[in-house]
Amino acid sequence: METCTTAQIVQPGGPVELRQMPLPDIEPGSILLKTLYSEVCGTDCHLLHGKLEGVPYPLIPGHVSVGEIAIARGVVRDVDGIPFEVGDKVAFLDVHETCGTCWYCAVAKATTRCPARRVYGITYGADDGLLGGWSKFIYLKPGVRLLRLPENVSPLTYIAGGCGMPTAFHAIERAGIQLGDTVAIQGSGPVGLNSVIFAQLAGAARVIVTGSPSLRLELASRYGADEVIDFAHTCAEERVSRVRQLTGGRGADVTIEACGNPDAITEGMEMTRDAGRYVVVGQYTDNGPAQVNPHLHINRKHLDVRGCWGCDFSHIYRGLSLMSRWGHHFDWQAMITKTYGLADAAQALEDVAQLKVIKAVINPSLDGG
Amino acid sequence: METCTTAQIVQPGGPVELRQMPLPDIEPGSILLKTLYSEVCGTDCHLLHGKLEGVPYPLIPGHVSVGEIAIARGVVRDVDGIPFEVGDKVAFLDVHETCGTCWYCAVAKATTRCPARRVYGITYGADDGLLGGWSKFIYLKPGVRLLRLPENVSPLTYIAGGCGMPTAFHAIERAGIQLGDTVAIQGSGPVGLNSVIFAQLAGAARVIVTGSPSLRLELASRYGADEVIDFAHTCAEERVSRVRQLTGGRGADVTIEACGNPDAITEGMEMTRDAGRYVVVGQYTDNGPAQVNPHLHINRKHLDVRGCWGCDFSHIYRGLSLMSRWGHHFDWQAMITKTYGLADAAQALEDVAQLKVIKAVINPSLDGG
Amino acid sequence: METCTTAQIVQPGGPVELRQMPLPDIEPGSILLKTLYSEVCGTDCHLLHGKLEGVPYPLIPGHVSVGEIAIARGVVRDVDGIPFEVGDKVAFLDVHETCGTCWYCAVAKATTRCPARRVYGITYGADDGLLGGWSKFIYLKPGVRLLRLPENVSPLTYIAGGCGMPTAFHAIERAGIQLGDTVAIQGSGPVGLNSVIFAQLAGAARVIVTGSPSLRLELASRYGADEVIDFAHTCAEERVSRVRQLTGGRGADVTIEACGNPDAITEGMEMTRDAGRYVVVGQYTDNGPAQVNPHLHINRKHLDVRGCWGCDFSHIYRGLSLMSRWGHHFDWQAMITKTYGLADAAQALEDVAQLKVIKAVINPSLDGG
Amino acid sequence: METCTTAQIVQPGGPVELRQMPLPDIEPGSILLKTLYSEVCGTDCHLLHGKLEGVPYPLIPGHVSVGEIAIARGVVRDVDGIPFEVGDKVAFLDVHETCGTCWYCAVAKATTRCPARRVYGITYGADDGLLGGWSKFIYLKPGVRLLRLPENVSPLTYIAGGCGMPTAFHAIERAGIQLGDTVAIQGSGPVGLNSVIFAQLAGAARVIVTGSPSLRLELASRYGADEVIDFAHTCAEERVSRVRQLTGGRGADVTIEACGNPDAITEGMEMTRDAGRYVVVGQYTDNGPAQVNPHLHINRKHLDVRGCWGCDFSHIYRGLSLMSRWGHHFDWQAMITKTYGLADAAQALEDVAQLKVIKAVINPSLDGG
Repeated sequence: METCTTAQIVQPGGPVELRQMPLPDIEPGSILLKTLYSEVCGTDCHLLHGKLEGVPYPLIPGHVSVGEIAIARGVVRDVDGIPFEVGDKVAFLDVHETCGTCWYCAVAKATTRCPARRVYGITYGADDGLLGGWSKFIYLKPGVRLLRLPENVSPLTYIAGGCGMPTAFHAIERAGIQLGDTVAIQGSGPVGLNSVIFAQLAGAARVIVTGSPSLRLELASRYGADEVIDFAHTCAEERVSRVRQLTGGRGADVTIEACGNPDAITEGMEMTRDAGRYVVVGQYTDNGPAQVNPHLHINRKHLDVRGCWGCDFSHIYRGLSLMSRWGHHFDWQAMITKTYGLADAAQALEDVAQLKVIKAVINPSLDGG
Repeated sequence: METCTTAQIVQPGGPVELRQMPLPDIEPGSILLKTLYSEVCGTDCHLLHGKLEGVPYPLIPGHVSVGEIAIARGVVRDVDGIPFEVGDKVAFLDVHETCGTCWYCAVAKATTRCPARRVYGITYGADDGLLGGWSKFIYLKPGVRLLRLPENVSPLTYIAGGCGMPTAFHAIERAGIQLGDTVAIQGSGPVGLNSVIFAQLAGAARVIVTGSPSLRLELASRYGADEVIDFAHTCAEERVSRVRQLTGGRGADVTIEACGNPDAITEGMEMTRDAGRYVVVGQYTDNGPAQVNPHLHINRKHLDVRGCWGCDFSHIYRGLSLMSRWGHHFDWQAMITKTYGLADAAQALEDVAQLKVIKAVINPSLDGG
Repeated sequence: METCTTAQIVQPGGPVELRQMPLPDIEPGSILLKTLYSEVCGTDCHLLHGKLEGVPYPLIPGHVSVGEIAIARGVVRDVDGIPFEVGDKVAFLDVHETCGTCWYCAVAKATTRCPARRVYGITYGADDGLLGGWSKFIYLKPGVRLLRLPENVSPLTYIAGGCGMPTAFHAIERAGIQLGDTVAIQGSGPVGLNSVIFAQLAGAARVIVTGSPSLRLELASRYGADEVIDFAHTCAEERVSRVRQLTGGRGADVTIEACGNPDAITEGMEMTRDAGRYVVVGQYTDNGPAQVNPHLHINRKHLDVRGCWGCDFSHIYRGLSLMSRWGHHFDWQAMITKTYGLADAAQALEDVAQLKVIKAVINPSLDGG
Repeated sequence: METCTTAQIVQPGGPVELRQMPLPDIEPGSILLKTLYSEVCGTDCHLLHGKLEGVPYPLIPGHVSVGEIAIARGVVRDVDGIPFEVGDKVAFLDVHETCGTCWYCAVAKATTRCPARRVYGITYGADDGLLGGWSKFIYLKPGVRLLRLPENVSPLTYIAGGCGMPTAFHAIERAGIQLGDTVAIQGSGPVGLNSVIFAQLAGAARVIVTGSPSLRLELASRYGADEVIDFAHTCAEERVSRVRQLTGGRGADVTIEACGNPDAITEGMEMTRDAGRYVVVGQYTDNGPAQVNPHLHINRKHLDVRGCWGCDFSHIYRGLSLMSRWGHHFDWQAMITKTYGLADAAQALEDVAQLKVIKAVINPSLDGG
């Protein structure tokens, strides 16, 4: 156990290579996690193509992972104060070093905008250590927050939720869904699909999904979407018109943008009723501007538009509680189309980019050793 | 008292003419109001140029007015159940026939989007009767809501607040200002100036105004704006930069758009801190689209954008309470640059359009008779 | 069809008698409804014993009912503007004449405290007409709000929800449940059981019910309560202790009081975590004071206590949407233990009072004719 | 500068004695503050009489203080990241070690209920070091949060606000005052008086204060209270009746309990309008139970009761911004009746207990040396 296999994006544009890394010294308060699964997220495709700023290549991707505690130095406790032990299956919060003392943390209480916030697999490079999930082991620095998996949430179920789970959770929290609302969701990727689930758990009486391809829309229906509208067979006007037709001509009470296309913004605003709420959560990279008419789309509509960035510990904690409660009803694992070894990470990225899979998962045990 | 002089916009594009109208029969539950003052609002300039849809010309403008009860048929009561009497000085809510039973009223509780809502001086034409304020008398149909002027709020003070008072009040209510916030206001017209006042009463510790011309900015300063930035001497980038400089590099906690220019939208978003609130209240007519980058301006900023349309009875009632309480501190009348007779209504419109005045007021007693 | 059989509470203390009433003239805008079912509510027991003030006896009880339109004079429309027709199955809002213009309606926007509000079967007496549900026909005065039953919500399902449905809905709305919360519910009557359902639909990850008898607790479990605690086998201290044990020692995030016993108040506060929310909805009649320690139970706990009175149209509308959406999952009809004819109304009241039934329903067709 | 004079409460019941303490070693990240002023708070009287649990005597009281940086080890930064320097005048947050990682911090986001939270002058004893303000010097452990005094807020003005400033600020934040509300305040001590100020800054159009003695009520009036009602000349029923008389028979929109007497609870509830908000902030020690009728006072009133415990950094930061903005309008220093040396601390406690002073302040420079 002296070196460790990792898959790394060597530089913007690739390639993705297997590289051996030394196992680190374990500081007091830190943990070495044996990776069970790590996620391949749409963001990892952006990382491959160098679309995010300030990323230190070479990089071990994988910002949401689940593993088993291999080594623990000192006592690390969960949020209830109960110590973790070797062998515990845990999920970890990709986001950490939120400082608690800056203006955003202490005055605005908007911790996802804390400048000190760091993310495993994105803002740390391989030179910083085993700080990404596409690796046989992950080094959890002191202060990284862990969650114990409930007995009825398997590691595979948790990773199926992946990064989309807390992201969608946060978006639905921002949406302020009222019991009985109609919720439209733009996009049927992992964030959109998790939003289908959480919208219902937040009280939506009807869920409408616009997206593609049919593989994803079928899963949206299985998760309880009352109506799915395929991007492939409709134009924006038809989609807006269909949502209005289903809602007495008014539009959805709440619309969740989870597709990343700037053109979706105007469409989403028109899809939402006057005095409704529109949550923008899918625009994680800069794909250029949208044309918005501030009179028609915002002022006269009396619309609430709510951007939603990142997530915090509460979103993972609360989302996991609901996975535990509703796992028999909503089959999160159905999102996983394919599991890949570290050696197949490049293929995984390509399959995600081409929408061949809904969710791709890295399982380092497939690589042997 | 058999006929009544009115000023009417005859058709889109004008002219504005004095016309005699017969005094109406007074239905049970209705009131004939002797007009003391009526307002000339920016919206009236739009009406002159035919910029609003569905307006029935010829039109008696004047959607906010204050008057004295000349005739009352039956008992009309205020919100506390106390009957109005002949001679009472009253303000009236321009907006009425909000139905209370449609989906927007009863389910969404978003009454300013009620389709049955009608507005004196805008959605009624002269053929409907004396239903606008630029007239010696105004006919208050049954159900039109009245407010008794507090003793320490003179008719002139009330009309100085005018339409901008409840509009700004509503915008500030939507803004959810927290005690100690920094508030930036885009625009120094009546809505902007009333926002300077209400932002402070809602707890702002600092108010920054961008606007022009200097006449208005000077009044903003008198009303307590800590910093005013003149459109005439700055570009958007400089204004954003100045607001950030004043706020530790972050931007305002809350920005109120009250200028009507679509280009203000992006500027306003950049002027607002991450996780702040941006209220769009000034885009009352369609002046075309704005280019918004949904990644930079909404999603990553975790921004709340809140459209704000119209007002309801509570905004006038509550705003009037504050005018009564703070009238000694904030000199609302200072907004009135000039008072015009009905015969000078066309001139008033022109002076408003050319920003020669801050607030123009119609006083029908100046016409004699 | 010239007279109509009704069951009336003749005076405080009873008896309950069948009485014939003439069928009324149908005013324009009003409807004669053939009663399919009407509810026997705990409030009706209070009415029998004269526990409510200002009730005009003799009284036709029945404040929540469902029926079929027998006669309609003029056009009555639903909230979407679609006219009702003879033969339509409709639920009606027991509460009406909320004025829309008083201080509570127009300024406070707290319509359930509107002084003009009237309730069928409670604030109208038999001398006012067929204004209660324990009758072959119900006269719906102009302005009484109707809801069309969705196709997949049968009249029996709707009446099973009964008065407890919108009451619980309102309580859950007041509770502000966050996704993943633990919710404790005090009481397992119709309001408690509907709260079990709506708490889950509002995002609770865990529901704990304290109540009795076992018939009701078993239904609570069927509805998804994770833990039920029987009043019969526990003292207050044990119940508080059990809830804390299930919540890491902290108590429930939200507690809903739905049992009507003043002693429940302190117990409920202790059952709730610090900085949690406690909704008091079950104290519909005056059963005397509770002893609350303001330091321990309110101030130091940083507790939110929220009274909840009545309901409005939105609660029925939204609740009905959820009944339609989740009727396959939550079997509302299981609450109905027994159905009675009008002639058996006295027996129904007694069975309710003695907790022999969960929900008793009046079906006037059982009386023949 | 090798030893330091402190005033200590030796044990529950006293006495209060001057004691010399050695000056501590200054750890990296910590600061030695030369005390300019420290506060004598009502809580200090409770500490003298042993009314709080878990307090480690002997104790250096003084939980809110203002001072000048005498020694700083390493770089300590303010919330904007700007380093503090020797000679800076700073206020410090009495509350610290809020952990950021426990369930209350990370999931409930209710940091004032964090179990790790410690308070200078209350939960630290003299054996822990110079961790209270009644001392020539105060040792600020690493992590204690500091605020730079704005130029226009003098140390004396800041200490005049004292502990009551953030406490009242938090209560007003909890109250959710709407612009134009009527606010009743029970109690005219430092929390009540600060509430008079902040209620107005939060938009109250009218403020009513019940309290005593007249010295305090006169100051309430100077701070803008529209009506003051003296406990000495009225009974509870008269006070309730007077508030209702001033509010159309309804009661205050918001009532703030800031007097500490359990009997105030029922009175405060009755003083508040239906569907209003009642904030309980004054019950900082256990003075026994109150009798509350849950039907009349909570359920039927549709009342919101909000406990309010402690404060966090944002309350001091935001409150200080408002002190800076409104210091010319509200004369905070008028609350200081008398300033005492350390040697007179016992006298100060007695004067506070007997309500001889509104606010007593310790100034260690009065002791010489």
